[in-house]
Amino acid sequence: MLDFRPISYVFGRILIVLAILMVAPAIVDWSAGDSNAWAFVVSALVTGGGGGLVALATVNRAVGAFDIRQAYLLTAAIWFGLPVFAALPFMLGVPHLNFTEAYFEAVSGLTTTGATVIYGLDEMPAGMNLWRGLLNGAGGLGIAFVAMIFLPVMRVGGMQFFRTEGFDTFGKALPRATDIARDLLGVYVGLILIAGVTFAAIGMTALDATVHAIAAIATGGFSPRDASFNPYSGAGEYFGALFMLLGSLPYIRYVQLVRGTPRALWRDGQVRAYLKILAVAVGSVTLWRWLTSDMDLETVFRESLFNLTSIISSTGFFSGSFSLWGGFMLPVAFVIGMMGACSGSSAAGLSVFRVQLIWAALVQQIRLIVMPGRVVPVKYDGRTVEPDVMDALILYVGGFILTLGVLTVAMTLTGVDAMSSLFAVWTCLGNIGYGFGPLVERTGTFVDFPDIAKWVMTLAMISGRLGLLAIFVLVLPRFWQR
Amino acid sequence: MLDFRPISYVFGRILIVLAILMVAPAIVDWSAGDSNAWAFVVSALVTGGGGGLVALATVNRAVGAFDIRQAYLLTAAIWFGLPVFAALPFMLGVPHLNFTEAYFEAVSGLTTTGATVIYGLDEMPAGMNLWRGLLNGAGGLGIAFVAMIFLPVMRVGGMQFFRTEGFDTFGKALPRATDIARDLLGVYVGLILIAGVTFAAIGMTALDATVHAIAAIATGGFSPRDASFNPYSGAGEYFGALFMLLGSLPYIRYVQLVRGTPRALWRDGQVRAYLKILAVAVGSVTLWRWLTSDMDLETVFRESLFNLTSIISSTGFFSGSFSLWGGFMLPVAFVIGMMGACSGSSAAGLSVFRVQLIWAALVQQIRLIVMPGRVVPVKYDGRTVEPDVMDALILYVGGFILTLGVLTVAMTLTGVDAMSSLFAVWTCLGNIGYGFGPLVERTGTFVDFPDIAKWVMTLAMISGRLGLLAIFVLVLPRFWQR
Ligand SMILES: [K+]
Ligand SMILES: [K+]
Repeated sequence: MLDFRPISYVFGRILIVLAILMVAPAIVDWSAGDSNAWAFVVSALVTGGGGGLVALATVNRAVGAFDIRQAYLLTAAIWFGLPVFAALPFMLGVPHLNFTEAYFEAVSGLTTTGATVIYGLDEMPAGMNLWRGLLNGAGGLGIAFVAMIFLPVMRVGGMQFFRTEGFDTFGKALPRATDIARDLLGVYVGLILIAGVTFAAIGMTALDATVHAIAAIATGGFSPRDASFNPYSGAGEYFGALFMLLGSLPYIRYVQLVRGTPRALWRDGQVRAYLKILAVAVGSVTLWRWLTSDMDLETVFRESLFNLTSIISSTGFFSGSFSLWGGFMLPVAFVIGMMGACSGSSAAGLSVFRVQLIWAALVQQIRLIVMPGRVVPVKYDGRTVEPDVMDALILYVGGFILTLGVLTVAMTLTGVDAMSSLFAVWTCLGNIGYGFGPLVERTGTFVDFPDIAKWVMTLAMISGRLGLLAIFVLVLPRFWQR
Repeated sequence: MLDFRPISYVFGRILIVLAILMVAPAIVDWSAGDSNAWAFVVSALVTGGGGGLVALATVNRAVGAFDIRQAYLLTAAIWFGLPVFAALPFMLGVPHLNFTEAYFEAVSGLTTTGATVIYGLDEMPAGMNLWRGLLNGAGGLGIAFVAMIFLPVMRVGGMQFFRTEGFDTFGKALPRATDIARDLLGVYVGLILIAGVTFAAIGMTALDATVHAIAAIATGGFSPRDASFNPYSGAGEYFGALFMLLGSLPYIRYVQLVRGTPRALWRDGQVRAYLKILAVAVGSVTLWRWLTSDMDLETVFRESLFNLTSIISSTGFFSGSFSLWGGFMLPVAFVIGMMGACSGSSAAGLSVFRVQLIWAALVQQIRLIVMPGRVVPVKYDGRTVEPDVMDALILYVGGFILTLGVLTVAMTLTGVDAMSSLFAVWTCLGNIGYGFGPLVERTGTFVDFPDIAKWVMTLAMISGRLGLLAIFVLVLPRFWQR
């Protein structure tokens, strides 16, 4: 029988953390004399109270290590359950969303998707925009932490390849994991501080600088502005691109950098490939747009750089007329968004690492056809990739494409046109948050989608964060029969 | 050094066959008193003369078996070279196309894609429409022959799985292959005759019945009518669906049926899965369209059945308002078209067999995650699928998706909108011929695409027929270094 109590204990403690986070926007709104502060106070009491009770009731069953089924269940509980509490301020406070939209917004925040259903952000209480930023920040930190410490031991998507890199800490060498977590927290908060100070220096308001800094480093993409980065075009776009990029690199390299090995970041094959792919995308789209429009080269380059970096890093900020360019831009954006950024960051999608390995496997298979005798193993950064890693990886890629197809089909059933459906599922499953298509054009948000389509999008956002597989595992009956 | 002479000899003989085929439309136009007959006479003389010279010059180097590089080169020579000669009548005769369009039409015919750039088919000389049908027929027969006899020994796309099924004939047991070829020809011509008589019985003109019968069994999709099957809606659509379906089943089962093992067809796991997938697609699209429109149920069912069968079988006939339905229909059509019909027929796409194996591998990987200890091999129809088959198959699927993406990107560069680009590459790479998107709507043909986009489509059609891989092999420099 599966023991739910250790899971409940951890879940309860996470609820308490969420309640503590709600204190910040409460203070902001209270000091501005905005009665909206009460929405956060009530939400914090409900969330903290509930979490405290659950944690107290199960504290004597708390154990140090979970088995793999418990780990999957906790993951699912966090992704499906936490947003219920995170959604409370959106219902009790000023946007006064219904449950569908509030849950959507909370899931979008915690999964660092950044797709919003709120139109009229600029007029909202500052606390509510800060709350959206904090959801992005908390989600991004949690995801980076899981990507560094837990994923490598879970056989999901070929991540076990990183197991031997010195982070085999799951349930065993806990002190080591705690060290890493502390370093990670330091790097994460440090990057946000640098980004915030930079954004303030180029003229952003305190709220905009704070939320944009958190949402950029978390690759979350929530903005306190309906027009996203348009109020800060120019320097804002260049620095925005820089910090989105920094937020989508593998955090382990920053930790190594802090510990005195700066070369590790630059020597990382994934980072190099990521930068090359981004450069090719920005270069080709800039050239194409410059040749086929009246826009001047600097504007074309700046908008390509900012928007494509936003998409590949799965952040989701937007600027300028980029999203209406169509043509060559659309398939480029689609492909780099589906790929996403680096494994080991808070970015989602297939990741550069997996795309590199798939490419290596393709090349190896073609060699096999030409020279049937010579079996050469697939290598990555000089290390042999074992078949079990490759199998798990191909499953991940196959599952991603399959999920993209199935959810797109499901969304067209809600009456949404095919183009809007495909890009909505793409942006949610890849946790990008960037909007394309007829239904997004009016507001730049996802508010015009039918409610049932919003639930499909919510499911897509969570699927993109479950390592895609846990969700399949949960529906397998055998999972429960031990 | 690679010896080109055996390849040239075979290519020369194939040209002679092509020239002989040109005699039929010449006779049809001559007996109708149409001077267009001269286009075929001149084309036949050029093609036959050229082929005869090449064959004579290389006859003393003709050998019984090719090595694998020669086989790939011959394949490429046939797909790229043959259409040059097959295009002659389109340039010399009545539609008087330029080389781009004539080559497009010839490639579309021989690859059994069936996408046309001729608008005004109904007014063309009968011989020219017959020529289009004959290109479909010759292409379909050649492809079915290669799929049955050559592909299983070529390690392409996991087809070596069928090697042990008793057709290991490449270069060794040639009499056996000749037997199979004779049976295949009998089955193929027999099916065309039955289809032609049926089509004539329900009221088609002699020309329409002939070309539709050939194009249905060949899964080619060329029609002598701009409106495809619209002039024959009703019974024409039901029987049309039947014969498209029969043309897309594995021919080896028909051969076994003729040889006295009728159960082999029905017991084939691929055939059963194919019919189930088609039933689910037709059922769900019918239900969806019936619930969301004013159309009556029979019309909705008939149009869904005919058009979805046309797409999944990669035939490409169309009827009714189906192509404008949009919504849920579009992703369903996209997915079943990309999958295509059965391995071992003239249909293209990924094939049901490969989709089944990918699915089995997905299930096996999920099991592995849940129960890490128990490695269960992937099975198909009770037989274990070896890892090398799975590797080749995954390469094929990966290559297909990659090619789809790259060619779509290339087409948007020609100024075509993203939707039209994606569906044009989809319809060409899958050798479907069915048209979706803004640029197709005016005429139901591909005539409105820019010339350069037509070349991208031509490349896509050939790529869909090269087993996708040969083209990668040809660009690998090492291929030439032995
Ligand atoms: K995002
Ligand atoms: K076709």
